[in-house]
Amino acid sequence: MSKVTSSPAGAAARAARGAAPGTVWLYGRHAVAAALANPARRIRRLVAATEIAGEVATLLAEARADCPAAAEFVDRAALARLLPADAVHQGIAAAADPLPPCDLADIVASLEDRAAPHLVVVLDQVSDPHNVGAILRTAAAFAALAVVVPEHGAPPVTGVLAKAASGALETVPLVRAGNLARALERLKAAQFWCVGLDAAAPDNLHTLSLPARVALVLGAEGAGLRRLTRERCDFLAHLPTRVPGASLNVSTAAALALGELARG
Amino acid sequence: MSKVTSSPAGAAARAARGAAPGTVWLYGRHAVAAALANPARRIRRLVAATEIAGEVATLLAEARADCPAAAEFVDRAALARLLPADAVHQGIAAAADPLPPCDLADIVASLEDRAAPHLVVVLDQVSDPHNVGAILRTAAAFAALAVVVPEHGAPPVTGVLAKAASGALETVPLVRAGNLARALERLKAAQFWCVGLDAAAPDNLHTLSLPARVALVLGAEGAGLRRLTRERCDFLAHLPTRVPGASLNVSTAAALALGELARG
Repeated sequence: MSKVTSSPAGAAARAARGAAPGTVWLYGRHAVAAALANPARRIRRLVAATEIAGEVATLLAEARADCPAAAEFVDRAALARLLPADAVHQGIAAAADPLPPCDLADIVASLEDRAAPHLVVVLDQVSDPHNVGAILRTAAAFAALAVVVPEHGAPPVTGVLAKAASGALETVPLVRAGNLARALERLKAAQFWCVGLDAAAPDNLHTLSLPARVALVLGAEGAGLRRLTRERCDFLAHLPTRVPGASLNVSTAAALALGELARG
Repeated sequence: MSKVTSSPAGAAARAARGAAPGTVWLYGRHAVAAALANPARRIRRLVAATEIAGEVATLLAEARADCPAAAEFVDRAALARLLPADAVHQGIAAAADPLPPCDLADIVASLEDRAAPHLVVVLDQVSDPHNVGAILRTAAAFAALAVVVPEHGAPPVTGVLAKAASGALETVPLVRAGNLARALERLKAAQFWCVGLDAAAPDNLHTLSLPARVALVLGAEGAGLRRLTRERCDFLAHLPTRVPGASLNVSTAAALALGELARG
């Protein structure tokens, strides 16, 4: 996603039309509520359906000080016209600037307790924004430190991705790595063991004895991990489904793997 | 979904236009390949993009004898016009009659080995077809006997549901129960223990000691299980996420629970 760059005059013009380059419409109650609660997120406009005015007032009362002073209330049809066709907006949308980019090095450098369990999720060529969003949501439930995707071959942050993340886009850093193999090397240098999911691997994930710091690496459905990614993994394992080699959606595979890893 | 009823004249007219009442367009490679391989599924038309003709020939060579003799090859735009907007068709679609309804009593009556593990998934008011389809797919990976939904309050079988199921609609019976509470009673009479997922339940699913036959019961995201459904459960348990009470998509919750239950 392009970063926001601005000149004072350009910024004024954009403020007038309520948009900045890279500004994205977030929609859905959880996605918007989480964006309002995130101090790192700049909200340009907040638009809601008139019939949920009471709920929006509560949201704004709980939100931080620098969010837009007032929501715009419109009918549902007018709200839908601001958004992509078929957006499941639940009556609320916010035009938001992109979050500042996150650096993997900063995240791992901040870790102190060497014995505490830490999880990072790495996605190699997962291109569907629903899946990336769903994995962010599950990563939040398992307290993952970050979800790492390659700069190329991962979907941009859109309303679809944010809606599937159901607020987790604001709480779990989505790191875009210029080079995924190098990101794995960086994780290994920080004592993470890289565990790649591979339906053809002889080891079952639940029989592995893993250390406290694990980077879970998932590839695209069908294609799996790319060679360079696979070669950087310390372990390759399959998931303990009852039907061997069963085909799974990548966000389902991530959930099953996180469930296994959280058991320790 | 309405059942197919026909008079000879009506059938001829429908055959001419390639559709029967209740006929649904299935699309996506896995969904269509599984439908072609399912002897219980009647395919009326098979339409594919010209550029995947080779792949379709392979599919048809492997399919059963009574599927349409010939696929119609069209360009992608013509294929898209047959389908709902934004259908991710991957170049192939089939107009198919609905599957014959499945009866829960028949499914449980067919079980013999009393000690063998058996799973059934029960969905209470899960209304999103993506979620029901995704749960069918995961249920297939865990060899679940059936996914049970209420006749009212569950989505009809559409191309969206079938696409999310990625073929599992053809292999895992989707049972529509007139009365969900009565379906749970029927499962209990067949020695299934009903385990309801409930984020507020004190027990953790992975600490429960469960018998071989389990019916996993999930409610709608947010609302959870309805009172009558909850009261019929033998156990209520929460999922072992690292963040207590974390919000999960219902298909993710189903996957995590099936992963736990499969460990025995």
